[in-house]
Amino acid sequence: MVITMKKQATKDQIDHVVKEAQACGLSAHLARDGERTVIGLIGEKAQLAARDWRSLPGVEDAQPAQHPFKLASRQYHPESTVIRVGDIEIGGGEPVIIAGPCAVESREQILEAAHQVKAAGAHMLRGGAFKPRSSPYSFQGLAEEGLKLLAEARRQTGLKIVSEVMDPINLPMVCEYVDVLQVGARNMQNFHLLKEIGKTNKPVLLKRGMSATIEEWLMSAEYILSAGNPNVILCERGIRTFEPYTRNTLDLNAVPVVKDLSHLPVIVDPSHGIGIAKYVPAMSLAALAAGADGLIIEVHPRPEEAVSDGKQSLNPAMFRELMSQIRPRSRMLYAARG
Amino acid sequence: MVITMKKQATKDQIDHVVKEAQACGLSAHLARDGERTVIGLIGEKAQLAARDWRSLPGVEDAQPAQHPFKLASRQYHPESTVIRVGDIEIGGGEPVIIAGPCAVESREQILEAAHQVKAAGAHMLRGGAFKPRSSPYSFQGLAEEGLKLLAEARRQTGLKIVSEVMDPINLPMVCEYVDVLQVGARNMQNFHLLKEIGKTNKPVLLKRGMSATIEEWLMSAEYILSAGNPNVILCERGIRTFEPYTRNTLDLNAVPVVKDLSHLPVIVDPSHGIGIAKYVPAMSLAALAAGADGLIIEVHPRPEEAVSDGKQSLNPAMFRELMSQIRPRSRMLYAARG
Amino acid sequence: MVITMKKQATKDQIDHVVKEAQACGLSAHLARDGERTVIGLIGEKAQLAARDWRSLPGVEDAQPAQHPFKLASRQYHPESTVIRVGDIEIGGGEPVIIAGPCAVESREQILEAAHQVKAAGAHMLRGGAFKPRSSPYSFQGLAEEGLKLLAEARRQTGLKIVSEVMDPINLPMVCEYVDVLQVGARNMQNFHLLKEIGKTNKPVLLKRGMSATIEEWLMSAEYILSAGNPNVILCERGIRTFEPYTRNTLDLNAVPVVKDLSHLPVIVDPSHGIGIAKYVPAMSLAALAAGADGLIIEVHPRPEEAVSDGKQSLNPAMFRELMSQIRPRSRMLYAARG
Amino acid sequence: MVITMKKQATKDQIDHVVKEAQACGLSAHLARDGERTVIGLIGEKAQLAARDWRSLPGVEDAQPAQHPFKLASRQYHPESTVIRVGDIEIGGGEPVIIAGPCAVESREQILEAAHQVKAAGAHMLRGGAFKPRSSPYSFQGLAEEGLKLLAEARRQTGLKIVSEVMDPINLPMVCEYVDVLQVGARNMQNFHLLKEIGKTNKPVLLKRGMSATIEEWLMSAEYILSAGNPNVILCERGIRTFEPYTRNTLDLNAVPVVKDLSHLPVIVDPSHGIGIAKYVPAMSLAALAAGADGLIIEVHPRPEEAVSDGKQSLNPAMFRELMSQIRPRSRMLYAARG
Repeated sequence: MVITMKKQATKDQIDHVVKEAQACGLSAHLARDGERTVIGLIGEKAQLAARDWRSLPGVEDAQPAQHPFKLASRQYHPESTVIRVGDIEIGGGEPVIIAGPCAVESREQILEAAHQVKAAGAHMLRGGAFKPRSSPYSFQGLAEEGLKLLAEARRQTGLKIVSEVMDPINLPMVCEYVDVLQVGARNMQNFHLLKEIGKTNKPVLLKRGMSATIEEWLMSAEYILSAGNPNVILCERGIRTFEPYTRNTLDLNAVPVVKDLSHLPVIVDPSHGIGIAKYVPAMSLAALAAGADGLIIEVHPRPEEAVSDGKQSLNPAMFRELMSQIRPRSRMLYAARG
Repeated sequence: MVITMKKQATKDQIDHVVKEAQACGLSAHLARDGERTVIGLIGEKAQLAARDWRSLPGVEDAQPAQHPFKLASRQYHPESTVIRVGDIEIGGGEPVIIAGPCAVESREQILEAAHQVKAAGAHMLRGGAFKPRSSPYSFQGLAEEGLKLLAEARRQTGLKIVSEVMDPINLPMVCEYVDVLQVGARNMQNFHLLKEIGKTNKPVLLKRGMSATIEEWLMSAEYILSAGNPNVILCERGIRTFEPYTRNTLDLNAVPVVKDLSHLPVIVDPSHGIGIAKYVPAMSLAALAAGADGLIIEVHPRPEEAVSDGKQSLNPAMFRELMSQIRPRSRMLYAARG
Repeated sequence: MVITMKKQATKDQIDHVVKEAQACGLSAHLARDGERTVIGLIGEKAQLAARDWRSLPGVEDAQPAQHPFKLASRQYHPESTVIRVGDIEIGGGEPVIIAGPCAVESREQILEAAHQVKAAGAHMLRGGAFKPRSSPYSFQGLAEEGLKLLAEARRQTGLKIVSEVMDPINLPMVCEYVDVLQVGARNMQNFHLLKEIGKTNKPVLLKRGMSATIEEWLMSAEYILSAGNPNVILCERGIRTFEPYTRNTLDLNAVPVVKDLSHLPVIVDPSHGIGIAKYVPAMSLAALAAGADGLIIEVHPRPEEAVSDGKQSLNPAMFRELMSQIRPRSRMLYAARG
Repeated sequence: MVITMKKQATKDQIDHVVKEAQACGLSAHLARDGERTVIGLIGEKAQLAARDWRSLPGVEDAQPAQHPFKLASRQYHPESTVIRVGDIEIGGGEPVIIAGPCAVESREQILEAAHQVKAAGAHMLRGGAFKPRSSPYSFQGLAEEGLKLLAEARRQTGLKIVSEVMDPINLPMVCEYVDVLQVGARNMQNFHLLKEIGKTNKPVLLKRGMSATIEEWLMSAEYILSAGNPNVILCERGIRTFEPYTRNTLDLNAVPVVKDLSHLPVIVDPSHGIGIAKYVPAMSLAALAAGADGLIIEVHPRPEEAVSDGKQSLNPAMFRELMSQIRPRSRMLYAARG
């Protein structure tokens, strides 16, 4: 149920609605829609129907929820969410660029990559310390050692750090080192992990599962939001289809759809989305034109030596060239969106 | 087999290679790669191996074919193909915009639509006279009457006409009225139709099948090219995936891939690709940013009254607004590509 | 609209309903549901609502159509359809086995194959004279020469002939030679072809398109039925998914679903459905257990020499072994269904 | 690398190969192929190439690995694995039937279900105590209370218990109560969970992920096997495709493929695989005919009251009827396989 208060509704009237809701066993969530307050109510059907919400003082309208996701929906939270990581704003109008290697491989590699992407204009550094690999015999990441190297790269460059957390046990440790948690596609429905992340306040980049529908993806965001963490950034990274030429099919349709259904910011990962380095720049520009709030791009100092995902990693020169195309464009694109 | 001649190769040397190829039972196709001539040979393995092509005078190099498609590949035809329809160039650097209703419904409707899209800056008019419908009980199009109305719209507006041909029997009639033939997704592997179109010289917009791989799509282009018609325009219109929210999944990955593998121009159909009118503008801009040579967009004077595809049709105001965003952007995007 | 007549309804009462329907501009189709007559009405909503059908004498009930397909649905035609090809009954309780090579390659090959599958117990011979190939450079079939060889194989073995027709132009010629027309997966929505086949009375094996939904498949059957040909046999042959190990994903779910939604018989093609010969027997048995009315299996005298589809063709010994497993099983399976 | 010892190889010769392998840093795994011993070696390419394994005494042959999965492959372990749960053998020739409700809802419900499926002939009881739900607002299971009720059902009926474990933290608790751990489709690539399960000795039913390839599924089995737990049972439960009529597309192709590539037993879940109760019996029979070692079927005392998955749950009468069809059939099917 979504209750829209009148423009001139008083704080007392708002508090009154919230108390009535709680008395019915509902949870109440406040958000803004321009000058109005919106109160989202979550609970069982019977509880929601227990009252004639429209008759409460200060209430303008009350509408049933349109979607199974509530806190993630624009109906419950009409204004776009801007997530702040230091002085970087994700969803604030300027595209945010996250770049770096698939995995932290060595001190030299990650520091070199960090300085290169910083110089080219990236805002954050990506790099996996825990790697979800299909084979138990493949490199699984440097674990805490990798996180320490990322922290060192931050000290040297000022870049904020994005890195994946794969299970609740390592969550406190990962939180200590990184600025943004990443939940990988394979863990999009690892509900225990989502709930634990929901108890922190860390920004989290939630990748779409390989065959997750848009609704399921937003329901996974809902797990984090409903556990108390409002800082969810969605990340489209390609879905699995029949097409064998590309690694995945980047579903840019999802960008305008999710920006319409939800208030959460959306980042696109063209590297996994197409899987071939030479095509990543075109898909980066397409993602921004579709309305993405930023990009996460794999860049490796020497892609041909990368332990993983070398085929889809840009080298530093390609990344610099791409950044030089993004900058003027983003200014115009974002101007147009107003 | 692809033979690259030396820059200074003479016409006689080129003719000599062609004659030798024909003597081996091969077909030979000439194309340009900057200042060099490229000769593509097509035939059986044994025939191709019958000669040491590198030893012929004027030959610089000879390489086996990298793909099952030959005439459609950049290897056989390194320079991008520009297809001319009157004074419109498809693939020439400036995005070409084709717009109009799903189906020709009446004289009034198609003329109104034609004037509206013309005023907004479209280059060509689309409109189906023969409609492939999943149900035998649905409107199947006005047939020749529809083609005549399209021709009248051309006379009134100067817009070139794109319309679908569904079977070889009606091909001569459709050719009489339209400037560009359209082959629909369901007919992408209607090989008899492709061969017959290959015998004409009409430009043809070849839509990708709903679950066709990129390779299969280029092989369908190969059917038309190898039958003698070089004027093939590829059209990405969304593929079928598990995602239920959108009508199809627009595969923009296909744009940079096909532009790399093939010399043929690529047009994107965001209307079918996402299937919901309010999201079409975002996907139009994304398609151009990905490198598309143009767009084909459904526009109806009154989408809510459309006999088919109303849900995905822009109204004239939305189309005007989109065109005002495309114009400056395309200038910059195309400048950048230079 | 489906009208169920009372058990004791007279012929006059039935004729009266039909005449009333025609007077409203509806087409009326008669079928049996045990001892009752069922009258299916097809037309526009307004026409259907023009009358209170329940008030006509002899009418027991009138229900709106549940599906967009009408003549193909069990609602319109409650009794299972049995299609007779000579003395073979498809849908009659005993599984029908169609076997033979992908393509007719030579007189020797098709006659050898025919004798082999006949000896093993097959009921019909398959073999393509017109082959839909993704490449214009691949073998396209022997055309009429192939059809003549199939006819000769029929004379020698008594086996009925199933062969593909790819376009309306060749339809009269193919009809002259074959007992069952095959419409391939790529042509499932070649509506012009479907309409033309609908004007004949030939049994037709309608393959499901590579990414066709069950509903679309039944709508294609509806094209043939509504044009006047009641002899449609559905053929599940695998759908396109992300799984690369098998050629297609045989969708056996479709068998019980279609047998429930429709009265038409269903044949399964495990050869295309899995694409690897050694796994075809397991999928053949699974298809029959799921409720299929028969199988169409690729068998080649020497699969390793086959011009096409050798990888998925059984050799004669494998086919004999499979037939020896099918025979007792089918007796039991069909007894159980009784 | 797979080393096949001679039939007459001595224990000393086998030990010698193992020691040499360990000296090269490889792990060595012994299995039987009829009368021969097979030694599977796992390690880096350089380590595997360090020795000429064929020259060691008692060695007949040494072959490189054919697949990225090793311990899960038939090459490394030629004999089919039979997993014992009490006196039940999974993979032993007789199909094993696991039945019960989606979730443990109450003491009354689970005990009633247990007695019903026991009476009909089931071998094990399924029931979720921890439920992975797309919505955080849906019933998440009774947790330990549910496990206790399952244990009580075992005491009353003698049925072995299968229940899902969703994260490593609850693993010790779940192990205490259940006989077979279940890993759900959403957790197939929760690698941390797989590794922890690999450290136990509990049999584990590993469901295929919704869009997991067969190779990825076997790689997930490899995670468990390589961590030390040999008791992996694979479970096909349907993949995600474009078809909207059924919940998933049951991929029975996977049954013969996996039985060929791997020595592990395969169970099929037709309830999730098709998602509609009335079609579950047909798909159960099809799964056994395809070669499955057993079935896991949702049965609820009153499906219409089920908290989850009621639409796909058989009622007790439907389950009894299905069991009466499976019994004679399985005898014959398994006899045939001999």
